[in-house]
Amino acid sequence: MGGVAGGMSAATRLRRLDEQAEIVVFEKGEYVSFANCGLPYYIGGVIGERSALLPQSPDGLRERFALDVRVGHEVLAIDRTARTVTVRDHRSGVDYAQHWDHLVLSMGAEAVVPPVPGVERAHVLRDVVDADAIVRAAGHARTAVVIGAGFIGLEMAENLHARGLSVALVEQAGQVLSPLDPEMAQPVAAHLRAHGVAVHLGTRVAQVGPDTVVLGDGAALPADLVVLAAGVRPRSGLARAADLAIGPGGGVLVDASLRTSDPRVYAVGDVAEKIDAVSGKPVLIPLAGPANRQGRLAADSITGRPARDTEGHGTAVVGVLGLTAAVTGWNEKQLRTVGRAHRVVHIHPSAHATYYPGAAPLSLKLLIDGDTDRILGAQAVGTEGAARRIDVLATAMAGGLSASDLLGLDLAYAPQYGSAKDPVNMLGYVAENLASAATTTVQWHELDAARAGGATVLDVRTPDEFAADAIPGAINAPLDQLRQNITDLPPGRLIVYCRVGQRGHTAARLLSAYGRDTANLDGGFLTWQAGVRSASL
Amino acid sequence: MGGVAGGMSAATRLRRLDEQAEIVVFEKGEYVSFANCGLPYYIGGVIGERSALLPQSPDGLRERFALDVRVGHEVLAIDRTARTVTVRDHRSGVDYAQHWDHLVLSMGAEAVVPPVPGVERAHVLRDVVDADAIVRAAGHARTAVVIGAGFIGLEMAENLHARGLSVALVEQAGQVLSPLDPEMAQPVAAHLRAHGVAVHLGTRVAQVGPDTVVLGDGAALPADLVVLAAGVRPRSGLARAADLAIGPGGGVLVDASLRTSDPRVYAVGDVAEKIDAVSGKPVLIPLAGPANRQGRLAADSITGRPARDTEGHGTAVVGVLGLTAAVTGWNEKQLRTVGRAHRVVHIHPSAHATYYPGAAPLSLKLLIDGDTDRILGAQAVGTEGAARRIDVLATAMAGGLSASDLLGLDLAYAPQYGSAKDPVNMLGYVAENLASAATTTVQWHELDAARAGGATVLDVRTPDEFAADAIPGAINAPLDQLRQNITDLPPGRLIVYCRVGQRGHTAARLLSAYGRDTANLDGGFLTWQAGVRSASL
Repeated sequence: MGGVAGGMSAATRLRRLDEQAEIVVFEKGEYVSFANCGLPYYIGGVIGERSALLPQSPDGLRERFALDVRVGHEVLAIDRTARTVTVRDHRSGVDYAQHWDHLVLSMGAEAVVPPVPGVERAHVLRDVVDADAIVRAAGHARTAVVIGAGFIGLEMAENLHARGLSVALVEQAGQVLSPLDPEMAQPVAAHLRAHGVAVHLGTRVAQVGPDTVVLGDGAALPADLVVLAAGVRPRSGLARAADLAIGPGGGVLVDASLRTSDPRVYAVGDVAEKIDAVSGKPVLIPLAGPANRQGRLAADSITGRPARDTEGHGTAVVGVLGLTAAVTGWNEKQLRTVGRAHRVVHIHPSAHATYYPGAAPLSLKLLIDGDTDRILGAQAVGTEGAARRIDVLATAMAGGLSASDLLGLDLAYAPQYGSAKDPVNMLGYVAENLASAATTTVQWHELDAARAGGATVLDVRTPDEFAADAIPGAINAPLDQLRQNITDLPPGRLIVYCRVGQRGHTAARLLSAYGRDTANLDGGFLTWQAGVRSASL
Repeated sequence: MGGVAGGMSAATRLRRLDEQAEIVVFEKGEYVSFANCGLPYYIGGVIGERSALLPQSPDGLRERFALDVRVGHEVLAIDRTARTVTVRDHRSGVDYAQHWDHLVLSMGAEAVVPPVPGVERAHVLRDVVDADAIVRAAGHARTAVVIGAGFIGLEMAENLHARGLSVALVEQAGQVLSPLDPEMAQPVAAHLRAHGVAVHLGTRVAQVGPDTVVLGDGAALPADLVVLAAGVRPRSGLARAADLAIGPGGGVLVDASLRTSDPRVYAVGDVAEKIDAVSGKPVLIPLAGPANRQGRLAADSITGRPARDTEGHGTAVVGVLGLTAAVTGWNEKQLRTVGRAHRVVHIHPSAHATYYPGAAPLSLKLLIDGDTDRILGAQAVGTEGAARRIDVLATAMAGGLSASDLLGLDLAYAPQYGSAKDPVNMLGYVAENLASAATTTVQWHELDAARAGGATVLDVRTPDEFAADAIPGAINAPLDQLRQNITDLPPGRLIVYCRVGQRGHTAARLLSAYGRDTANLDGGFLTWQAGVRSASL
């Protein structure tokens, strides 16, 4: 049931494992196995040919894999006792029953549509038909409002902007990209604004008018076109009606072999819940990679092969007008919500050696279990190398490496590709300093409390850097003159900072050696600035 | 001893750990902590400013880290009993003794100069002075010969080519880039040739003449400039003279805490041997990343902190005129030499989703332990995403993931960055098929033997593909008509192949289901072609 990522992976793998099986694929829509992650780029004109979105056809799948692919056929009900599904052929209007020995649920997810007056005018983007509708509507539109600043919302903002529309992005949360923490997401919002996309954060949509979107404060944004990207929810209604166990997020519950509560029924992809690698609990991870993998594993299960799905990290990446944001595992917001002991590392290295032209900054954040040094999550934002480092960190998590182990990774280095101390190694260096108590850090959001407790903030950058912009109330004490000036420093606790945290670390070690109670501001001025700006929206 | 990567990392880390220590750095040359991996790009003009190569000065290091950096000071001898070194100040010509409590050897490696007549005219490239000399010589040169096609040799060929010189590359081995296997290196050589670099493989240099390089067959290549990049050897002479234990590769032997056979003497970087992660034995890995890490760990050891160096995979990457080649761990040549049971996977996916513009091919090779499914090594060649995938594979090796585990990695996907089934996941899919015996493959170099044993080679691509170029003697049996034509196939064993191996796998499964003894040609026509071309130089 469902002929896109997970369903089609299951069907083709099953054929490769069993030439004799009768395999029927029901797809409610007209298209199977389409490139749904490409839809925003087709709308933006980056992907020029609509046919590029449709690599597979029912005929082609019949020829190569002897699959019976029935498009325009919707499953209306599942009878687990009789082992049948009731199917409607939308072309003929006829309903019929189809027997099954094994059933794979791969219905995916549908767009969440908030109950806002006028919302029926808004477009969602889940399939090729939706994309066609947006392309038609965008053809005679000059203004667009995208509601929701998650992955799809940002991709739609980029692509409508690329088509020449004047685009506004409206997000209920106080930040874009909720999988990231606010200080990591802030540069993404700033980047959108710098490119002319209006970004309205912490903002509710009150109404979708005939040619506007009206916000909670009454402001009306011109909107010839409205795109709704407010998240998705699993299409689990039929599973629920068939009394299959449903998880806390509303997806179908499965075990590691993708079996639902009925051992002859499997669920894969967006309709199913996955086990979160950090919590060990079922969650929704509506991403294409896991869907494809699960489809394959369901076929393995059906044919009696050992199949054990991996726990998920929700690794994801998005491009936003030349900037890349990527994430894996848990963020700091989640850890603080559940009160789990954790350490945080922010760094801002160059994506490749600074002496080689074009070295762009790359901001990285690492979340670490405070008790075990286990890696819990990571975030990366930059124009180069973000996905690469997140992939490495997701792999380190899968392999059970500790945060300190990252310093020992042998990574590929030449000056145009990285640094002798790769950004991932640098995360390990800082993590090991924290784990071994060689350094103490404070986070940007802890600075006010530290000051209220009597700490002095010391800016160890050069006088020129200090003069250009600094944390209000900080005292300038440049690192390279710190030894000589140590007796002139004010008494009490010292919080030191530099631009990114590296000179701050050297300063903190030096001051500690002279008996001073010192902490380094993690991620330096850059992280603090992004954090403060994110807190003020 | 030695003020570049490893030595300077040790000195600065030591200062951060111990404000009171007296730290003296002896550097024979005039420059410390220079960007040696940037030298070829300075020569090529990519790095415009010479000062970019020199991020640190002795004065700056004195100011920030209170280091006593003595450039132009050469250590002549080590006395381990008296705990002194004899030092010559090359400016004054005076020799003196310096006491030490802990000694860190970081003298690096020197260029190997083969005993060829006239070789003294050839330039080597180990430091800034060498680079200056090459820049001067290149200024009035029109032709250049680079001897040695390793990482530095290829970077020099690229950069002299970029300066407008007519460049020839001469390599004694039958392939460029010996860390790669020949069929993976072949496209790199072809790429060099396509860009106008003459590549002479399997070729000895007989003589360096006044304006030529004469090859073993008597051919004389015009050579206004000659660059020698025939490998390096550790500068371990002083350590040897001081009776420190030396490893099988001629480097200083150290334990995991970087201690030599004398527990007060440490060795780091190119002068030291590292433990190879695959064999568990000491080897030479002259790379910048491990050197920096080891410097830090030596400082940790000296101050009594726990320090345990990781075993090395020799992960490396090189850019060659827009193409990237990267490698980690062991190659097939090494595994065959020691007779270790192994499996091999070649794939040729796109670096990102094929439906998104600019998707470039990426060739990957995975070496797997035949008994344990452990990952032993990997190679990648392509214009995009090669370093990223090798970093992920090196991390998977460090984390002890099996080859089959790669299918379950959660990696960052959006269509401009990757595929829902990332190339690394695809390696895992194939590896799992091999481990579970769902597929049997033959390697390109096993095809002739299989044919001699009576196997028929079946090309399952389309007739058009077959007509364009095919393996001689193969029969065309297109995959999409295979079911209908199955009874027409010749008897006996069948070796199937397609372009990259994917359709071949489907065909092999299908034929096996009909009782045919079938194997798939690993990596398909592309790998076979590269292999055959590499074998014929």
